[in-house]
Amino acid sequence: MKKNNKKGVILLSGGLDSAVTLYYARSRGFRPDALIFDYAQRHKKEIEYAIKLCRLNHIDFYTAKIDLGWTKSSLTDSKIVVPLSRNLNKKDIPATYVAGRNIIFLSYAFSLAESIGAETIFIGAHTCDYSGYPDCRPEFLWNFNQAVNLGMKDSKIKISAPLIDKSKKDIIKLGLKLKVPFRYTWSCYSGGKKPCLQCDSCRFRTEAFRRLNIIDPLLRK
Amino acid sequence: MKKNNKKGVILLSGGLDSAVTLYYARSRGFRPDALIFDYAQRHKKEIEYAIKLCRLNHIDFYTAKIDLGWTKSSLTDSKIVVPLSRNLNKKDIPATYVAGRNIIFLSYAFSLAESIGAETIFIGAHTCDYSGYPDCRPEFLWNFNQAVNLGMKDSKIKISAPLIDKSKKDIIKLGLKLKVPFRYTWSCYSGGKKPCLQCDSCRFRTEAFRRLNIIDPLLRK
Repeated sequence: MKKNNKKGVILLSGGLDSAVTLYYARSRGFRPDALIFDYAQRHKKEIEYAIKLCRLNHIDFYTAKIDLGWTKSSLTDSKIVVPLSRNLNKKDIPATYVAGRNIIFLSYAFSLAESIGAETIFIGAHTCDYSGYPDCRPEFLWNFNQAVNLGMKDSKIKISAPLIDKSKKDIIKLGLKLKVPFRYTWSCYSGGKKPCLQCDSCRFRTEAFRRLNIIDPLLRK
Repeated sequence: MKKNNKKGVILLSGGLDSAVTLYYARSRGFRPDALIFDYAQRHKKEIEYAIKLCRLNHIDFYTAKIDLGWTKSSLTDSKIVVPLSRNLNKKDIPATYVAGRNIIFLSYAFSLAESIGAETIFIGAHTCDYSGYPDCRPEFLWNFNQAVNLGMKDSKIKISAPLIDKSKKDIIKLGLKLKVPFRYTWSCYSGGKKPCLQCDSCRFRTEAFRRLNIIDPLLRK
């Protein structure tokens, strides 16, 4: 059996994408430390699920509280409405965009990676569904990776974004293969106790499970 | 009189370099919002001085508390000793290096800049004295600037590092010209009530004032 102990860092939100990324990292022989962010997001439930996933995988985790009070995002500002039933084919930047979110998350990840001697940072970013988020674009990730290494003591750290070109359907297929417990992943942006099934994130998820002819385990509970 | 109201963001530590950078920005017609970080640094006194400088300049400020508990730096870990009387000509990375510090600070600054519609981020980084800090190198700053803009909605934000090639002596000379109140700038790393005059930061400062034949106003008090 492959030893699951290579050092890494994973940005774990508790959403479906980062959960699949965690199980992908585990399947590649990594035992990454997880970075979980509390950025006053409406959907704090994802944090509980992120911690649950860490415990299931016996991995260490850090929860970092960050205050981005200045961003005008519907994910963090209760006065801005989370868009429901938006046209998902529109390629504009949605109101759920948090200025610089992945940039800040990755910066913390590089700091942690260098401190623990990890050479790989895993992120569940992908472009297919959310092409509207500029900080999920591959050209951003690769350029950022190179730039940051110029500012670090250890210049060998690499970003791994294994889902980057995958559709939500393919991400779920990979997750099924890797035995990801989807019941412990949270996607809804709206901040309720149950998924609203109307925000972008719920709709991408629901549609992908439907196409695979599977009932989302989260909805079965 | 030039109107002092162009939008900007300044990374303000309360140290001498960022104070001079603030007055430089003011002299160029900017009224930047300041970002002040509480990263559990020993020398918290610098935060008081940063806030004092904001009030003197009637500029808005944000204090962001960040937890980089994993870094093995003498600036944040009380179990690691701040090096005293180190050979200042040695070009190795000192124990006061905090992994990814400027990378994280700049990421926050980009998020704030985009949110308030500012196109310039001021940072007091320079290479002359502290060539040991990789995240103060110009090649890092410029590459980081370009990479981050690929991940932002607004891709016109520029980093301005007006001190980048200056020596401490020249920074103080510029500060004198710009009427920087040096008595409200704090450089000592050791965390005491008075400057220790032995850490790298105190020694660079003291030596520069001495070369200019001026008594450091902070020591006059």
